[in-house]
Amino acid sequence: MPAPVTLVALLHGPDQPGLVARVAGWIFARGGNILHADQHRDMEEGIFFQRIEWVPVRESSAGHEAEEFLAFAASLGMQARIRHSGRKPRVAVLVSKADHCFHDLALRWRAGEFSGELVAVISNHRDLAATAKSYGLPFHHIPVTQKTKAAAEKRQLALLRKQRVELVVLARYMQILSGTFLQEFSGPVINIHHSFLPAFAGGRPYHQAHARGVKLIGATAHYATKDLDEGPIIHQDVARVTHRHGVDDLIRMGRDLEKRVLAQAVRWHLEGRTLAYRNKTVVFD
Amino acid sequence: MPAPVTLVALLHGPDQPGLVARVAGWIFARGGNILHADQHRDMEEGIFFQRIEWVPVRESSAGHEAEEFLAFAASLGMQARIRHSGRKPRVAVLVSKADHCFHDLALRWRAGEFSGELVAVISNHRDLAATAKSYGLPFHHIPVTQKTKAAAEKRQLALLRKQRVELVVLARYMQILSGTFLQEFSGPVINIHHSFLPAFAGGRPYHQAHARGVKLIGATAHYATKDLDEGPIIHQDVARVTHRHGVDDLIRMGRDLEKRVLAQAVRWHLEGRTLAYRNKTVVFD
Amino acid sequence: MPAPVTLVALLHGPDQPGLVARVAGWIFARGGNILHADQHRDMEEGIFFQRIEWVPVRESSAGHEAEEFLAFAASLGMQARIRHSGRKPRVAVLVSKADHCFHDLALRWRAGEFSGELVAVISNHRDLAATAKSYGLPFHHIPVTQKTKAAAEKRQLALLRKQRVELVVLARYMQILSGTFLQEFSGPVINIHHSFLPAFAGGRPYHQAHARGVKLIGATAHYATKDLDEGPIIHQDVARVTHRHGVDDLIRMGRDLEKRVLAQAVRWHLEGRTLAYRNKTVVFD
Amino acid sequence: MPAPVTLVALLHGPDQPGLVARVAGWIFARGGNILHADQHRDMEEGIFFQRIEWVPVRESSAGHEAEEFLAFAASLGMQARIRHSGRKPRVAVLVSKADHCFHDLALRWRAGEFSGELVAVISNHRDLAATAKSYGLPFHHIPVTQKTKAAAEKRQLALLRKQRVELVVLARYMQILSGTFLQEFSGPVINIHHSFLPAFAGGRPYHQAHARGVKLIGATAHYATKDLDEGPIIHQDVARVTHRHGVDDLIRMGRDLEKRVLAQAVRWHLEGRTLAYRNKTVVFD
Repeated sequence: MPAPVTLVALLHGPDQPGLVARVAGWIFARGGNILHADQHRDMEEGIFFQRIEWVPVRESSAGHEAEEFLAFAASLGMQARIRHSGRKPRVAVLVSKADHCFHDLALRWRAGEFSGELVAVISNHRDLAATAKSYGLPFHHIPVTQKTKAAAEKRQLALLRKQRVELVVLARYMQILSGTFLQEFSGPVINIHHSFLPAFAGGRPYHQAHARGVKLIGATAHYATKDLDEGPIIHQDVARVTHRHGVDDLIRMGRDLEKRVLAQAVRWHLEGRTLAYRNKTVVFD
Repeated sequence: MPAPVTLVALLHGPDQPGLVARVAGWIFARGGNILHADQHRDMEEGIFFQRIEWVPVRESSAGHEAEEFLAFAASLGMQARIRHSGRKPRVAVLVSKADHCFHDLALRWRAGEFSGELVAVISNHRDLAATAKSYGLPFHHIPVTQKTKAAAEKRQLALLRKQRVELVVLARYMQILSGTFLQEFSGPVINIHHSFLPAFAGGRPYHQAHARGVKLIGATAHYATKDLDEGPIIHQDVARVTHRHGVDDLIRMGRDLEKRVLAQAVRWHLEGRTLAYRNKTVVFD
Repeated sequence: MPAPVTLVALLHGPDQPGLVARVAGWIFARGGNILHADQHRDMEEGIFFQRIEWVPVRESSAGHEAEEFLAFAASLGMQARIRHSGRKPRVAVLVSKADHCFHDLALRWRAGEFSGELVAVISNHRDLAATAKSYGLPFHHIPVTQKTKAAAEKRQLALLRKQRVELVVLARYMQILSGTFLQEFSGPVINIHHSFLPAFAGGRPYHQAHARGVKLIGATAHYATKDLDEGPIIHQDVARVTHRHGVDDLIRMGRDLEKRVLAQAVRWHLEGRTLAYRNKTVVFD
Repeated sequence: MPAPVTLVALLHGPDQPGLVARVAGWIFARGGNILHADQHRDMEEGIFFQRIEWVPVRESSAGHEAEEFLAFAASLGMQARIRHSGRKPRVAVLVSKADHCFHDLALRWRAGEFSGELVAVISNHRDLAATAKSYGLPFHHIPVTQKTKAAAEKRQLALLRKQRVELVVLARYMQILSGTFLQEFSGPVINIHHSFLPAFAGGRPYHQAHARGVKLIGATAHYATKDLDEGPIIHQDVARVTHRHGVDDLIRMGRDLEKRVLAQAVRWHLEGRTLAYRNKTVVFD
């Protein structure tokens, strides 16, 4: 028996009494069965957050119910986004030359770990073309130089639009996306930063970490914003290092961290568990 | 401005459609404002779990509303327990000779980390009498020998009843409580086991761990049941060890684990975040 | 400039005064330059352990010096094993159907993380034949049934001998190797056990862990011995789980643990950092 | 039987062939028995580091042998420091008002976890006077204001000299020590920074961490230098946080991190396992 279609709504907006009851009541009145509901309040900012997942009474009208829910949420003054389990989000992965995160994502996709569809691999280099092909993934080479950056971003955007991409994952893509790109794409972009942000923001973080003699190195997955290294953090992890580890060891250990942290962030996003606001995230794990 | 009085309800019972909406609706209808609500479903067993916290419309009638809620929950076929933030649970700590967990708990209590009242320290030895006194805590010496165990447990039970104790914490108390004691006391008893259960159940776990050459040692906080080392696990943690660590090091590192794991379990329990069923727990952290 | 050839000696035997000085003196007298030296004493058992790495005075005679060192160690009553950095150990990986550890090892091999040569992939199933081929690795299908097990092990042993394999890695190989096989092969065999041994030894450990309601799951890499799940532990790690994780989540998280723990154990072994004795290991990390 | 007297030497200096053999040979020639020896090379800087522990042939002449060893090390061009297990280093702890690290250190001292003698507690406030007394520790109140800082530091230095203090531990001491103080004291000073340095250097790090929405908070123990937050890092650890944790939770969790990280750094220092150079440490754990 296949799992039933579910709807997941992610809401946030000004806190007010009765929100939990009203949302639950709306769903119950339409015969829906709530599977999970998780709330959070940012007391300082007075913001209410909710993730709620339910089985709608009829699968055939789930799409319609989703739209009605969005209207209902707006009537409560809430911003909302909805995820229909039968409609897998379309994802593009941007890569450069480093392949560890790409292999990791591709293998997890194949193992069924992500509830999304990987529809395009885009790179500014040709290095990973054969690898993408070996996974049966469409590869697009869009070279980027300082001079051609604006034109290249237009090509990328055209491709993302054509493929109806809803999420972009930067899997060690070594180009900074412009503010214009982020605004035009308008969807979420997840980046993996090879550092425990906010420490060692900027380039060559493992060299910086080694020079500073830290005893832990880290990696950070965050939503990309126009301020590099500054977007809302989704997930972070660290590994213990000692004086015996050289820069090469740190880079090797960092690869493992980056794979793990990026994969977890992508999984949470695709399951509708992450909600970004101001410069933070709420992760309903 | 003091924090408002809140009620926390912990519910569980057979799953059925509409539970989230009905519970939220009941609170909303009485003018309550829901602060947090967290649900879980055990799909295999068909059990619904919920932790819901709300500000009742009037502080003066919060106690009455709590009773009404219990009746309402029963009408839904749910077992429920309720926590009134203005009424701190009364706690007894049982100790023997080892003092690390006791110091840790007493200092955290003084730092305001626990929302409960420590009303009695009970021990089968006199060793910690002066320590308890230095923290201003009432100390009761109830010796236990194989012959006097039944009588000693009666004295313990009488004391717990007199002090209206609602939670017993075994902070390295080196006596096994009888099934009769657990049944008579009827309230929850939290134990810290100096091992990563289910490995190394039984005595001298750090010696066992050292002999087996494991690379991680652990500690486990669980609700006590009549089957020793078998109750529902609340929290566990581990520490990394190497061949360089002797049994003494393992014991020292184990003390740190035990302190941390027990304190976290007690904190979660007192905040109404733990719900035991069958031989497991749901922890709404 | 290529790194100079080094020799790594792993010694152990009855403790006696002067061992550190004698070993260092022997190397110094031959013009060698000691890069690293690490000692350990098992005080209870009175055993001395050492890992010592040095640059021999002439690369051309390094092989000869290695043999002389073995004779010298024997004269001290020590067992020794020596690793010549110019001679990569030859490794065979045994797999069945599960592919996560295999992909992980193959990709790490390609990234240059292991100082060994992967010369054979052996499986009792054909499932991973194409995958092995895609990595350019020779794949050998040796089916095993209850009836043909003895004959199959003979074929495996013949292949290992022909390929001069010095290390066997069981990457989720779902057959138990017989005592005869282990004795005949005589070299080290590393296994990944999908559990935090000694808890949940035996089959379906994630189901066992879920049923017991543990809050941490683990994986263990160990040298295989004829007593299943009982060999010397090389490395272990854990991941935190909650009531929200089903058996499927545990299995997914377990795959990540297994990959990481196995890769670390293989890396340490190939760098000559592990020394097994009785039922334990010394890991000079 | 008491443990025999041992000497621990910590050496570092320009790398040169034969150092390991010469040091071991020197000890062996005097009849000493080497218990542990650990080396490290900073390849980039060409520096050799060693920790070596041995039982001298006669306990009565151990002090004399220590002095001879220092002369021998100097003849090799090495800086050295030696620790005689029979002579416990004298330690002063500086505190202000926060008591969690102080309780933790005092209790560990009582449990015998540190091989040093706690001879003075010094504070710029009177708050912890009674607490120090309850542990039987001499308490010195030396108030510090902006105007009296120089004079106060002179009083502190006089006290440290009178008490022959060899290590100062800043257990949440909320005053910055001047460069003059550090130069005059000349011995090591260990500080606990309530942050994962280099992130959130400066004040109110938990507020900074909360504002940035990080998913891990940390603590760092380091040797104090005149550049605040910039000294060589000895130990670091982190704890996982979520959107559900407010600043108060971060502060509470931070207290636990601070206690653990500071205690580990102090233990390693007192066991002669830490060696600071440039702006880093080598920790022979």
